Amino acid sequence: MLTVKLKKNEDRRLRAGHLWIYSNEIDTEATPIKAVAAGTLCRFSDTRGKILGVGYINPTALLCGRLLTGKADATIDTNWFQRRLVSALDLRKRLYPTPHYRLVFGDSDGLPGLVVDRYDDVLVVQMTTAGMEQLKPLVLEALQRVLKPRGILLRNDTASRELEGLSMYEEVIGDVPEVVDVIESGVSFKAPIRGGQKTGWFYDQHANRDRMAPYARDARVLDVFSYVGGWAVRAARFGATSIACVDSSKLALDSALVNAEINGAALDVHQGEALDVLKRLRGEGRLYDLVIVDPPALIKRKRDTDAGTEHYAALNRQAIQLLAPNGILIACSCSFHMDASELQRILLRESRAAGRRLQILEQGGQSPDHPVHPAIPETRYLKSFVCRLS
Amino acid sequence: MLTVKLKKNEDRRLRAGHLWIYSNEIDTEATPIKAVAAGTLCRFSDTRGKILGVGYINPTALLCGRLLTGKADATIDTNWFQRRLVSALDLRKRLYPTPHYRLVFGDSDGLPGLVVDRYDDVLVVQMTTAGMEQLKPLVLEALQRVLKPRGILLRNDTASRELEGLSMYEEVIGDVPEVVDVIESGVSFKAPIRGGQKTGWFYDQHANRDRMAPYARDARVLDVFSYVGGWAVRAARFGATSIACVDSSKLALDSALVNAEINGAALDVHQGEALDVLKRLRGEGRLYDLVIVDPPALIKRKRDTDAGTEHYAALNRQAIQLLAPNGILIACSCSFHMDASELQRILLRESRAAGRRLQILEQGGQSPDHPVHPAIPETRYLKSFVCRLS
Repeated sequence: MLTVKLKKNEDRRLRAGHLWIYSNEIDTEATPIKAVAAGTLCRFSDTRGKILGVGYINPTALLCGRLLTGKADATIDTNWFQRRLVSALDLRKRLYPTPHYRLVFGDSDGLPGLVVDRYDDVLVVQMTTAGMEQLKPLVLEALQRVLKPRGILLRNDTASRELEGLSMYEEVIGDVPEVVDVIESGVSFKAPIRGGQKTGWFYDQHANRDRMAPYARDARVLDVFSYVGGWAVRAARFGATSIACVDSSKLALDSALVNAEINGAALDVHQGEALDVLKRLRGEGRLYDLVIVDPPALIKRKRDTDAGTEHYAALNRQAIQLLAPNGILIACSCSFHMDASELQRILLRESRAAGRRLQILEQGGQSPDHPVHPAIPETRYLKSFVCRLS
Repeated sequence: MLTVKLKKNEDRRLRAGHLWIYSNEIDTEATPIKAVAAGTLCRFSDTRGKILGVGYINPTALLCGRLLTGKADATIDTNWFQRRLVSALDLRKRLYPTPHYRLVFGDSDGLPGLVVDRYDDVLVVQMTTAGMEQLKPLVLEALQRVLKPRGILLRNDTASRELEGLSMYEEVIGDVPEVVDVIESGVSFKAPIRGGQKTGWFYDQHANRDRMAPYARDARVLDVFSYVGGWAVRAARFGATSIACVDSSKLALDSALVNAEINGAALDVHQGEALDVLKRLRGEGRLYDLVIVDPPALIKRKRDTDAGTEHYAALNRQAIQLLAPNGILIACSCSFHMDASELQRILLRESRAAGRRLQILEQGGQSPDHPVHPAIPETRYLKSFVCRLS
């Protein structure tokens, strides 16, 4: 197996537990990598030749290597994947009574470049690195061994694949329906895994939606960026008196209405750009007891920070205007490049500007099926504040 | 009413929502305060004389003023307190099905210097500033109006009162028993409000104890710094197979045994210093599936940071040694001077040193009856990490 040598001191981050190697950290004089095929398995060593572990390398990418294991003599085979999958599965089985969760969350589950969402016997899989793409046969075989799924949908069409020089494709293995069932804390949903966003359902907000219970009871609820109604329908089941959904996608709102019907709930849907709809609702003099603002990532790359930050501010500014006295605002951001303190700063500033007193009641992150890798800040991306505005 | 003028630009923090005034921020030439009685109500103004709001001042304290309201013409009377209490009560009623919670959390509830814990019809009250001490008759009258309590225990014996030049005292108004009932998420406890720690019960961990459910089921549990068994007994009710408590206080462990008995649970108690007991348990080859490390504040003042940090590290180091494979560690810190990232750094370092892979499953703060004031970092003090160690 190829050994790739790091420059002096560039082993420090890996020794502290990180799994990523950048191209400028590699001693390419000692170990040239230009000719190596994208995604090749290799060992990484420090400058003295001490092996740091086994991973894979992609010479065309800036973030060119990932460590799979710190064991120098590890064999990356189907058994290895099976052990990592079983460890990941053990955790989720403990966490959830039904088989609906993110089974694998990349680096945090020791499987860099791999995401697996489970919808009972249907799996939606994403491979985001050339290394994991190379290992695809082992991954699929290990998934078959551990879960024997009815079908696997490979949604290998995420933007990050471009950075790895990978093509975009979708692939169906076995029997994969257009729409699957999701049960979240006892509430049933239909999620569109083929035409929907990401892998079809946002499991990462499960815990934050659970948190909504006391605030949704007897409340007039507004769900902004509702997608297929995850927040809205959970709010209905928690006893909300009325629920309005805002989304730009007709498909999403149609799915939300289906999910409402399954649960005997009534939704008022507003198709349009969030800011436009919020302004219109304000013009109509509407007030809500609970407003959820859970947009898609508005800061995708670092250079979008200023524009994205202003977008978050504008959305929460409008949401605050629609809040009844002592109303609750659940403000979320899934942008890694906006940290929690920045979102809090926005919420404080906009509350002050509106003459409202702000209390932060709860702060949430991703659900525990999206563990945080303590050495990799990028694995902590979701922020959620439950705010009360007097 | 006295007006106290701030120096140029020293109004900025207040305008951003903060409530505190330090002595060096006051323009004592324009408005001498030396002769003002500790705790006097006053208006604060910027350097141009524009009123920032109404608060109180204590010329002997470094943190010498607190803003009660940003309304220049506010009258601080029993009605004013009543409105703030009703607002605080509305929130807690929404949050909890039974009357057991922190009713007032100082600055975060717009009542700087006041803490009120509610045990149904018994209140435990702390006044930590000379200003609030001066306002005591209004506070007590407002509490009577809003809650008509059977008894009020004033535990005005917290160390922070020394900074205000206040005496330490305990006072009983009405009927206050030694021990009160607490119901936390349906589980009954007895809490010692007279001889116990702080106000008798740690309501701030309620939400984090709720979070423990999936991890405690069928688990061997070790509760370090158990106090009266809050974590331990909740773990039993969640289905733990065995539970051991560690605490240095015999009174605490006796109370834990009573609480276990009420709930039909069996506890194994170990009296002693936590580090000593953990080392002994390790020597005996014990292993646990869930270990909770929830010490009292080990960094009380900034100058204790190094020693306290090492103490947190030593405790979690020992806890990790006692964890079975894939075991769960719940690591807490209530020290404001240790932020979450520092605690995470310790957990990562100690996991690496033990050759264990660490996943952070959940991160919690204070329960929502201890809201965070978004402009006052000191109001966010509790950190809790749910960790899995492979």
